[in-house]
Amino acid sequence: MEKLSIIKIGGNIIEDETSLNAFLKLFSNLEGNKILVHGGGKRATHVASKLGIESKMINGRRITDAETLEVITMVYGGLVNKNIVAKLQALQIDAIGLTGADINSIQSDKRPVKDIDFGFVGDVKKIASNSIDKLIKADFTPVFCAITHNGNGQLLNTNADTIASTIGVGMSKIYDTSIYYCFELNGVLQDFDDKNSVIKNINSNTYKELLENGIISDGMIPKLDNCFDALNNGVQKVHIGNTSMLTKENDNFTTITL
Amino acid sequence: MEKLSIIKIGGNIIEDETSLNAFLKLFSNLEGNKILVHGGGKRATHVASKLGIESKMINGRRITDAETLEVITMVYGGLVNKNIVAKLQALQIDAIGLTGADINSIQSDKRPVKDIDFGFVGDVKKIASNSIDKLIKADFTPVFCAITHNGNGQLLNTNADTIASTIGVGMSKIYDTSIYYCFELNGVLQDFDDKNSVIKNINSNTYKELLENGIISDGMIPKLDNCFDALNNGVQKVHIGNTSMLTKENDNFTTITL
Repeated sequence: MEKLSIIKIGGNIIEDETSLNAFLKLFSNLEGNKILVHGGGKRATHVASKLGIESKMINGRRITDAETLEVITMVYGGLVNKNIVAKLQALQIDAIGLTGADINSIQSDKRPVKDIDFGFVGDVKKIASNSIDKLIKADFTPVFCAITHNGNGQLLNTNADTIASTIGVGMSKIYDTSIYYCFELNGVLQDFDDKNSVIKNINSNTYKELLENGIISDGMIPKLDNCFDALNNGVQKVHIGNTSMLTKENDNFTTITL
Repeated sequence: MEKLSIIKIGGNIIEDETSLNAFLKLFSNLEGNKILVHGGGKRATHVASKLGIESKMINGRRITDAETLEVITMVYGGLVNKNIVAKLQALQIDAIGLTGADINSIQSDKRPVKDIDFGFVGDVKKIASNSIDKLIKADFTPVFCAITHNGNGQLLNTNADTIASTIGVGMSKIYDTSIYYCFELNGVLQDFDDKNSVIKNINSNTYKELLENGIISDGMIPKLDNCFDALNNGVQKVHIGNTSMLTKENDNFTTITL
């Protein structure tokens, strides 16, 4: 099986032009088949507030009403995605920007209303692996933003981490697939106060221990659960760290396997 | 040679949800290979004004400063393009939304400053016909918005009519290519006060006569010059009329040939 790397970047990289350019340079130098997945985060909040649309959050999660979905479609699907594509083209990467609606690549269901009505938020249902692979085989590099669709004409706001992991699972039928989650820290930390205390390898057994000892807690738990979900469904390896893990010089990041 | 139809729609269709849905239904029923090109027009002006950005026009042409380019990228590349793609997917058309940066499909040069500085406006230089054809051969339907790039990371606002004609010229090396320009009128009119006085056929000889007799004037001249430009460079036929020219029932529109 050929290899495929899926790299997910978050708001911290996108919002800073210098960080974004440095990351895109690293991404362009990465060998082999690759897919980029990006969020958008604060940029959407900023444009929304300029348009007089209040960002509603419940338990730290954005409520996507119709107006907010418009802003997200403009910012993630237009402004952020198309600028990344243009910058990658300048780096000789033949990028193509996509939402889940394009080539029907990611279909999702609007999240059912239980205690909270999240609005136009999608839970991923189906990845069109073969269609995405047609782009890769044509030597194009897919760049996904965090928007999916329901197949009936409705766009839906979707978590970028989930998009990366579900694309990973979908593509793992065709490729030996690794996911790289880039974030602010160097990796999963043994001691939160020591930025260099990176746990280099985690597997399902050591993960249990880390949970029991309370070393992994809070926001890191859903992130790692999401990783093991991907691994249990075909993804080969998941890496967590800052963007310099994409260089050969740096081995100070976390690698997660089953 | 296989046939390819390029359909261009303007702001009047995009801004009205009912017209857009009706048009997309017609487009989805159109047989054979096809490409959609859309403008965005007033929607961008509307979002810009909400964001407190003044739309600057000189001689009816938009001046694209950095802030305006951001709005255009959000509205054309994000909001309008991705909603059209999602709606087409619901009609079983495997659409893919593109700017000229995606797959490096349309490279342009920033317009040189002479009397007027148009800002971030691009004059089309090169169409990546083979890359666009890879999408068509993969059974995807390209949907282009009116944005190009310069190959150095800069997006550029570009006239949608020109995008349709230059894509037409580029693709005419591979396909027997026709362009359909959809606008408000039924076609080129003999008498501007009689909406049904459509001139059904124009060729280069009759065009000269129509110009000499003053029947074609003002805003219609650059539109038709653009059509003959496309025809002189490989496009087979250009049609001008309202969207119902895409149905077999209606033959009341203008067809232009050399």
